[in-house]
Amino acid sequence: MHPLDEAIDLKLAAPGQYRGATHPAYANMVGPFGGTTAAQLLQAAWLHPDRLGEPVALTVNFAAPVAEGEIIFQARAARTNRSTQHWIMEARQGDETVATATAVFAVRRETWSASEAVMPQGLPCADALERMPTKGLPAWPQRYDMRFIEGAFPAFDEQEQTHSRSCLWVRDEPARPMDFAALAAISDSFFPRIYVRRRRRSMIGTVTLTTYFHADSALLAEVGSRHVLGVAKALNYRHGYFDQTGELWSHEGHLLASTHQLVYFKD
Amino acid sequence: MHPLDEAIDLKLAAPGQYRGATHPAYANMVGPFGGTTAAQLLQAAWLHPDRLGEPVALTVNFAAPVAEGEIIFQARAARTNRSTQHWIMEARQGDETVATATAVFAVRRETWSASEAVMPQGLPCADALERMPTKGLPAWPQRYDMRFIEGAFPAFDEQEQTHSRSCLWVRDEPARPMDFAALAAISDSFFPRIYVRRRRRSMIGTVTLTTYFHADSALLAEVGSRHVLGVAKALNYRHGYFDQTGELWSHEGHLLASTHQLVYFKD
Repeated sequence: MHPLDEAIDLKLAAPGQYRGATHPAYANMVGPFGGTTAAQLLQAAWLHPDRLGEPVALTVNFAAPVAEGEIIFQARAARTNRSTQHWIMEARQGDETVATATAVFAVRRETWSASEAVMPQGLPCADALERMPTKGLPAWPQRYDMRFIEGAFPAFDEQEQTHSRSCLWVRDEPARPMDFAALAAISDSFFPRIYVRRRRRSMIGTVTLTTYFHADSALLAEVGSRHVLGVAKALNYRHGYFDQTGELWSHEGHLLASTHQLVYFKD
Repeated sequence: MHPLDEAIDLKLAAPGQYRGATHPAYANMVGPFGGTTAAQLLQAAWLHPDRLGEPVALTVNFAAPVAEGEIIFQARAARTNRSTQHWIMEARQGDETVATATAVFAVRRETWSASEAVMPQGLPCADALERMPTKGLPAWPQRYDMRFIEGAFPAFDEQEQTHSRSCLWVRDEPARPMDFAALAAISDSFFPRIYVRRRRRSMIGTVTLTTYFHADSALLAEVGSRHVLGVAKALNYRHGYFDQTGELWSHEGHLLASTHQLVYFKD
């Protein structure tokens, strides 16, 4: 079983309530990788018998440090319409809320479609690049095969850069077919932009993460276990918070997800 | 009293529960302008006696059409930390949930700050531009003074464009000092990008809206009642949903907010 599948293997505890746990394979410096928590929260709605359609949007609010061990996930459909459904989820440890989330699920239809965001062109393919070494990093980056064209995890030489752009091919490691859980987790796999920009250590923590899923499961199935292209940048750093925005593209040039987050930092 | 202040004038009904209503001055084609609903949901947390600090992030999920009349807003602090606080809000009419929301509030500190997003340069100032006529539009655009440099509300001549960029100076009409409620509402004031792109009528509805507040109240006070610069574009349209992203800048070049939304469309 793939470690991501183990991590999102939630067990029904009561109606709308699922028991899960942190997974050592996705440990971060303190607590688990937020992408895994996001995937678990999404999974709680996904597993719910009332679920309609597939996710189109997910917002996760990281409310407190998640301790190693059991997590109880609650999922409630706040509203079900003909083709859309609105979910509220919560992750709890003991009496404490450690994360909240909302999701929109929908039954999608064929329509006129177009892209305005532009996939970077003329890039080397993943096979032509080296995997970023993960020595010295926490467990979770070892669960990703990241091949950077620009903006890899920096040396902390304090040489401040003028921007924080990254561009990389990324897939689960070991390889695993792409699905919504994997895409939700990968959406949080961009290293904090402040590291890339300032090239110095700082204490950071994502406070909220929003991902829009432009792909349906049919398009994700076409991605299979191949790399996807990730691009990320920051917009603004001010008074202890910065936001970063990312895109995830299929090899064939389909925008699979756009993702935004707000991150606390201490300098 | 300014109509926005009337619209967000919620009355305490029970602990954590506030009574409000749709406001005719912010009516949309069907139901109210989503920006006003967003401002009301934010206000429910803002008014709560447990509130800590100021908003840094707001996500609103538009779950169902809001009917004209009373709305009950519930706000609950799911988690309060030393300098951050996580809120869950819900808007209800009768027995039905019409919107859900989450917000992150925080006490901010002075830190290293920087911008990576670039404010468009060399633009005419608001005084040098004509206000967009609002004749034939619903009530809510009449509550904004919008002066477009690019991408105004289009003629529906079905001449499809290659992009959906807009750039405009915008303020409340009548003028009103900027605050978080106004900024939350203005974040939803960008016309649906699919109108600008396709220049044809289509049925649309925002399903989720996320705004990151980069400004604190001191910076908003500096804005006063002057115009702010808004820029918006879409990233992707696919199978009934598109996302759009926007920035709101102060005259002095401070990024006040970045905002993202996912919109349902029918073609």
